[in-house]
Amino acid sequence: MRGLPHHDGSALYVPEQEPALGDTVDVFVRVPVGSDVRQVHVRTTGDGEPRFTEAVVDRVDGGDVWWRVPVEVRNPVSGYRFLLTGRRDHRWLNAAGLVDHDVPDRGDFRLVSYAPPPGWARDAVIYQVFPDRFARSAAADRRAAPDWAVPCDWDTPVVGRGPETPYQFYGGDLDGIVERLDHLDRLGVNTLYLTPIFPARSNHRYDAADFDRVDPLLGGDAALARLADAVHARGWRLLGDITSNHTGDAHRWFRAAASDVRAPERGLYYFDEATGDYESWNGVRSLPKLNWGSADLRRRFATAPDSLLRRWLRDPYRLDGWRVDVANMTGRRGADAYTHEVAALLRAVVTQTRPDALLMAEHGHDHTGDLDRDGWHGTMNYVGFTDPVWSWLRHGEQPVPNFLGTPGGARRRDAAAVLATMDAYRSMVSWRSYTHSWQLLGSHDSARIRTVVGDAARQEVAAGLLATMPGTPMIFAGDELGLTGDNGEASRTPMPWHRPERWDGGTLAAYRALIALRRDEPALRHGGLRPVHHDPDSLVFLRESPAGSVLVLARRAPATPVRLAGLPAAENVYGGAPGLRPDGDGTVTLPGDGPTFQVWRLG
Amino acid sequence: MRGLPHHDGSALYVPEQEPALGDTVDVFVRVPVGSDVRQVHVRTTGDGEPRFTEAVVDRVDGGDVWWRVPVEVRNPVSGYRFLLTGRRDHRWLNAAGLVDHDVPDRGDFRLVSYAPPPGWARDAVIYQVFPDRFARSAAADRRAAPDWAVPCDWDTPVVGRGPETPYQFYGGDLDGIVERLDHLDRLGVNTLYLTPIFPARSNHRYDAADFDRVDPLLGGDAALARLADAVHARGWRLLGDITSNHTGDAHRWFRAAASDVRAPERGLYYFDEATGDYESWNGVRSLPKLNWGSADLRRRFATAPDSLLRRWLRDPYRLDGWRVDVANMTGRRGADAYTHEVAALLRAVVTQTRPDALLMAEHGHDHTGDLDRDGWHGTMNYVGFTDPVWSWLRHGEQPVPNFLGTPGGARRRDAAAVLATMDAYRSMVSWRSYTHSWQLLGSHDSARIRTVVGDAARQEVAAGLLATMPGTPMIFAGDELGLTGDNGEASRTPMPWHRPERWDGGTLAAYRALIALRRDEPALRHGGLRPVHHDPDSLVFLRESPAGSVLVLARRAPATPVRLAGLPAAENVYGGAPGLRPDGDGTVTLPGDGPTFQVWRLG
Repeated sequence: MRGLPHHDGSALYVPEQEPALGDTVDVFVRVPVGSDVRQVHVRTTGDGEPRFTEAVVDRVDGGDVWWRVPVEVRNPVSGYRFLLTGRRDHRWLNAAGLVDHDVPDRGDFRLVSYAPPPGWARDAVIYQVFPDRFARSAAADRRAAPDWAVPCDWDTPVVGRGPETPYQFYGGDLDGIVERLDHLDRLGVNTLYLTPIFPARSNHRYDAADFDRVDPLLGGDAALARLADAVHARGWRLLGDITSNHTGDAHRWFRAAASDVRAPERGLYYFDEATGDYESWNGVRSLPKLNWGSADLRRRFATAPDSLLRRWLRDPYRLDGWRVDVANMTGRRGADAYTHEVAALLRAVVTQTRPDALLMAEHGHDHTGDLDRDGWHGTMNYVGFTDPVWSWLRHGEQPVPNFLGTPGGARRRDAAAVLATMDAYRSMVSWRSYTHSWQLLGSHDSARIRTVVGDAARQEVAAGLLATMPGTPMIFAGDELGLTGDNGEASRTPMPWHRPERWDGGTLAAYRALIALRRDEPALRHGGLRPVHHDPDSLVFLRESPAGSVLVLARRAPATPVRLAGLPAAENVYGGAPGLRPDGDGTVTLPGDGPTFQVWRLG
Repeated sequence: MRGLPHHDGSALYVPEQEPALGDTVDVFVRVPVGSDVRQVHVRTTGDGEPRFTEAVVDRVDGGDVWWRVPVEVRNPVSGYRFLLTGRRDHRWLNAAGLVDHDVPDRGDFRLVSYAPPPGWARDAVIYQVFPDRFARSAAADRRAAPDWAVPCDWDTPVVGRGPETPYQFYGGDLDGIVERLDHLDRLGVNTLYLTPIFPARSNHRYDAADFDRVDPLLGGDAALARLADAVHARGWRLLGDITSNHTGDAHRWFRAAASDVRAPERGLYYFDEATGDYESWNGVRSLPKLNWGSADLRRRFATAPDSLLRRWLRDPYRLDGWRVDVANMTGRRGADAYTHEVAALLRAVVTQTRPDALLMAEHGHDHTGDLDRDGWHGTMNYVGFTDPVWSWLRHGEQPVPNFLGTPGGARRRDAAAVLATMDAYRSMVSWRSYTHSWQLLGSHDSARIRTVVGDAARQEVAAGLLATMPGTPMIFAGDELGLTGDNGEASRTPMPWHRPERWDGGTLAAYRALIALRRDEPALRHGGLRPVHHDPDSLVFLRESPAGSVLVLARRAPATPVRLAGLPAAENVYGGAPGLRPDGDGTVTLPGDGPTFQVWRLG
């Protein structure tokens, strides 16, 4: 076990998790006994000026010296790092780890004084449903398919890429979801996130034609109220999906704007008055881009008393928050850079309407510059979780096609690269933003994890990481059954409720057990993260909290058994390996088989 | 010689150095023949969305394949990186170098569409003068010392730390500088930067009592006009120093504010009306902090027709720009975060008043977040140049005391750490901001380089790096004579004009030759930077431009001779080593002695 000095933003190191501006809070850094560290300072940069404060030894505990030092929350986001001075050398410890030379502040630890996300989000396990493909109620049979649709039976194969891809219509609806909530209950999730439910002219509904009513094809407003009641009756949360970057071209705002250059709606979009052309999402004409420079847009979308953002958070729907589609592009166009203004505006309105609402940003690449402000509570962490996990666990040597747009796809990487990528993104946001971001193995926009990793054994390792690493797990409906799909559209598979032979019972059981484990072990929800070993095929890390600690072993293939010193006896709580007992040297030996995923609770 | 794929923002790779918003410009990446690179894409993130464009082979030249690909300057600052795809693997190339796993966008290359700095700044060599200590004219003898002063003879030792430190008064003046311009001419500099010249109550004058007149102790307004005339007559530039973070407590604004709670000036500062206390720079009561939330301050300081910022840029003074003191703290206090607004405001006003004016920010730590906007043209690059150079070349094993505030001081590092630190900061700003920032070996705020490195031989290596690395060299007056000082205040040594025995003639000759070399070799001013070798004691790099290329060897101690393949014959143009001639294997061998600094012009 590598004994390295360690700090992260979890409660072991930062007992005050919700500091206010102007507070001074104690932070702790642990340094293994015997390290060449004689003095510890914290370096802060309040008001733009570096300052050093000397730490004192708080206690010696379990082989570590715990140093304590106060940090002033001088600015809304206050950075800090540690200077560890030894006999011959000094090193910095920042969120990226230990370094022996000077590095920029961008990797400093951060205390965030903005209001925290709602408390329920800390323990959320999200289940993502794509409504057209989840479940049909009997009422769905009585609805006519819309004019744009290619009607499909529930067994019709999904076409992942083709002219009919956005138009294949399976007719799932909200009452269908209500009927299947017992499945979510068995799985153990506690938050339902729906991709868009507003009327549109596609099966994905990201081309909203209207924000003021629920698509009648899904059962309409009343069906949403029924679903919300059913979800809330179980003590769960319900999240919507809103497109802030664009509308559909069938939206009444756009129709008014396109038909009359003097319409007030003209200014909601980016029209080139010389050509009549307009800006659209990635050049897709049916998705005209919204212009957040427009005060009228801000009013209609957000600040008006009856704005779309507000109304769905209220009775009788009571959405518990929004996932914001294409948040990465929202407000960005050429010299226009309204993204942070929009995020802050949406956050203010959402919180004012419903203090316990959550606001999550879709972001498919580097989100770190958009977090730790007064806007998004977190993001979909594709780059800091999905990408490295896929790269480590993927099946065979062939790249995964269509991986977040990278030509050539994701390549296979060893654990060192996985950790390096996770660290690179994690170190650029606060612990709060990191843990409140959604980690996912896939979504309606990506290949399915089962296709990426190729078999149930490696999917279990992936699901294990999802359940045991910091961050809020999000599961795309069907992953728990071992469904497949080699790109985002192909992954929008109808749930095979009536085809139990297509269910992978072992994978479902693993997901259930892993989610239960996360629920039962506070360290998995709120603990720090301390990597203790990696080799190309293995990752071993500790999750540690004041309420207990666990040791996690993830392995993609058989490898040399790992020996770790300094650990207490530990009981296996997932995976079936024996408990750990220190030998005469005080070391424990982890099993060498693989693929495997094992968790032990430390005594 | 390491043959690695390479790109930087210099003209070899980005022929269009001043792109406008909306332009599409070609960028080039060189890949050594024989590398496992079969395909090259550029990845851009215009409007917040990653896009990939495939590059084509432009030419094969000198052992390299040059790939070409267009990049749209979609946003004011447009990031890009390269994806290099080989048979078995793919790698990213960003400004931090080659990586085999995904990393955040913060290290992407950048195209900046804001108006560039004035053209003269590209070739500037700055000479920093601390007016009280540079030279006395005869008129100085006729002036009485002010009430705050501890009058000193020119030979009185400077007290680096003590009650009299800010009050030792040597009486240097602006006409004294005029009389010594021939020294600057012999040295070869072309830009004179004066630390503050406004009336104050200290020898450093950073506690301005007035921004509306030149201190009579320096000769007053007329003396500044005379100095400006003399500097401009030589075709040089003259820069002032303005304190935007604070004034002195003797300033008439502050006196009015402190004496009357209803005075309009009250709002220019941060008064706590409950206690009557006020915010000041680092708690120093004589330096009350300015409140940039005040519209009145913005008017008085910047936007008014006769603002202090404007008036000194006009006839008869015609300052060519400002160095902005404590730019890192300006506008930052608790929840107030006006820094970028202030920088943009000052830039707009300065440029409006004088289109060819320069605006440089003092910043003593991580400046990267404050550049590449529409504010500061560059910064004083202590962290990305001074710090690593000191760490590499310092004398003995003892830390340098008082190094930018780090407890324990700067430690000795090997060349790998030096490059890592330089890369870390360089990779987070555009090539433009990097090359327009001032690199320095010391200033009135630091120990002198001679004291840090301990001898003339290593000072020559330091000065060599100053003259040959990208960035705008700044020389603190007296360094060229080998003057010493172990902290900022102790370094404010009177120039020993009348003590030629204290001049280190060899050091002066080296500075002259190095500055001349920089003037004569376009690659040293405008070329790219390609490191080709390092070992703990050696740094070898190429500066390459369309107008020619040079090879630089810097060594702090004797080391194994370095053999480099793929270089043409080369003539030694600094340092006295033999020319380079490829042997039968096509390799050249660099000499192994040290400390040494050598430069060859490639044939």
